[in-house]
Amino acid sequence: MDLQGYLDDRCRIVDAALDEYLPPEDHCPSAICRAMRYSVMQGGKRIRPILTLAGCEAVGGDQKSALPTACAIEFIHTFSLIHDDLPALDNDDFRRGQPTSHRVFGEAMAILAGDALLTLAFETIAGHTTDVPAETVLRVVNRVATATGTEGMVIGEAADIESEGKQVDLDTLRSIHSRKTGALIEAAVVCGGMLSGASEAQLNALSAYGRGIGLAFQITDDILDVVGDSAKLGKTVGSDVRKKKATYPAIMGLEKSEELAKTALDEALDALSGFDERADALRAIARFVVERES
Amino acid sequence: MDLQGYLDDRCRIVDAALDEYLPPEDHCPSAICRAMRYSVMQGGKRIRPILTLAGCEAVGGDQKSALPTACAIEFIHTFSLIHDDLPALDNDDFRRGQPTSHRVFGEAMAILAGDALLTLAFETIAGHTTDVPAETVLRVVNRVATATGTEGMVIGEAADIESEGKQVDLDTLRSIHSRKTGALIEAAVVCGGMLSGASEAQLNALSAYGRGIGLAFQITDDILDVVGDSAKLGKTVGSDVRKKKATYPAIMGLEKSEELAKTALDEALDALSGFDERADALRAIARFVVERES
Repeated sequence: MDLQGYLDDRCRIVDAALDEYLPPEDHCPSAICRAMRYSVMQGGKRIRPILTLAGCEAVGGDQKSALPTACAIEFIHTFSLIHDDLPALDNDDFRRGQPTSHRVFGEAMAILAGDALLTLAFETIAGHTTDVPAETVLRVVNRVATATGTEGMVIGEAADIESEGKQVDLDTLRSIHSRKTGALIEAAVVCGGMLSGASEAQLNALSAYGRGIGLAFQITDDILDVVGDSAKLGKTVGSDVRKKKATYPAIMGLEKSEELAKTALDEALDALSGFDERADALRAIARFVVERES
Repeated sequence: MDLQGYLDDRCRIVDAALDEYLPPEDHCPSAICRAMRYSVMQGGKRIRPILTLAGCEAVGGDQKSALPTACAIEFIHTFSLIHDDLPALDNDDFRRGQPTSHRVFGEAMAILAGDALLTLAFETIAGHTTDVPAETVLRVVNRVATATGTEGMVIGEAADIESEGKQVDLDTLRSIHSRKTGALIEAAVVCGGMLSGASEAQLNALSAYGRGIGLAFQITDDILDVVGDSAKLGKTVGSDVRKKKATYPAIMGLEKSEELAKTALDEALDALSGFDERADALRAIARFVVERES
């Protein structure tokens, strides 16, 4: 399949919906709405929301039902980037080649813009999802919240902070990343399936796929931080090493890391063995996650 | 009615449920869970969650249906206190007589604990509400999110920050506070009603009640900051003046502020004229909000 064409098309759909669900720039007070839009509309590959649409399509659903949840996942991803970049956390000045939110709008507004995006995510799922049974939408709200909060991203970020400067073994690293980045990626795919009425067996398969690409994604991120091209990445290469962050290459070397990413990719593809060609987008995205250069 | 007995009883119920819904302290990684519990279990009057229970009871509902939402509202209130106290925002060292979250756990953990509590709120509503139609629970999720995010609390806080050091008139002050503190109080009462199947007319009445006490609550807060007792308040009196915050006493004087609080109280009580004695708790709480000393 033409993956680039698929990604470009879905990216346009997602971008238009994000623009619709975000409060307009002149929604007073102005600065927080500008800050929300600044970070969300900065681009990015929209991999997470596209996974939600593709997860929905893989079981024969209409992507329209999944679009609000797809955008919610992107709002949550963006909120996490804004807060992670703050001086008290990673203290990053640039993201995707642009100054980070707190550099442009100040720390207070960056904190609040993140809070508002996290909240907007749940408003978007609950308020904009149509043609889906309310029980299902509620289950999606619950799944997205769990993947974001105390079973997922935020607690994973806290674990990551607590591990800084400590000797971290492979199991601990996997446990941190399965929550920090894996849980939301897995939820993105699974919720797409839920919204199209997938069976429990199909949801389990989509979960396994999500775990596989989540892990492959993180390892590839770590590898790119060592061997990547700063211009393509939009951030400085080598920042993990300078910050003494625990990474896969640091713990097991580059070669073994690449092998592990390949194994995770294979597991993701295996999980889709019961799906027909409607899951080809998910398959192509899995390969793209490992082969990308940025 | 015996308001103190009612408040004590409902406070115990809310505290037990908060304890149940919060992740246990040893849920790894430890610091973020300790930080979440530290701020939530610090006490406070639990006015907002009790309003949710009382709103439910006022239309004849079982408070059990409203308990998860009541706790969610308290989680959101606590999240907002943690983030508002941060150095980049109000930079407060004490809250309820105790060191603020970032003073105990550091800024990074305080930011993340707030994020996790905000997320936990939606997880709690979606995952723990029983014996209520899914459509209704979804409507509650949407209402709570709207009152928290871009139509409510977070955007009100942003407006408050932007107004600092500027001349603020009464209309602007009301607009800031109706979002910053009023929206969540109103949502607390209205969601209680929703969860017990209130009619649209009843919900409108509960909204009007919520707006009335929300305004009365804020004016009373401002007045207490001028004439209150630091020991009872658990915070330093006069901090609004030192921070040059726009307040009702600063704009219209103490006497007029007290009159406006009284008018808002009357409006709240009038809104309940169609309710029977099951709304007596709401009536007593409204009077308490204006007459309290802390």
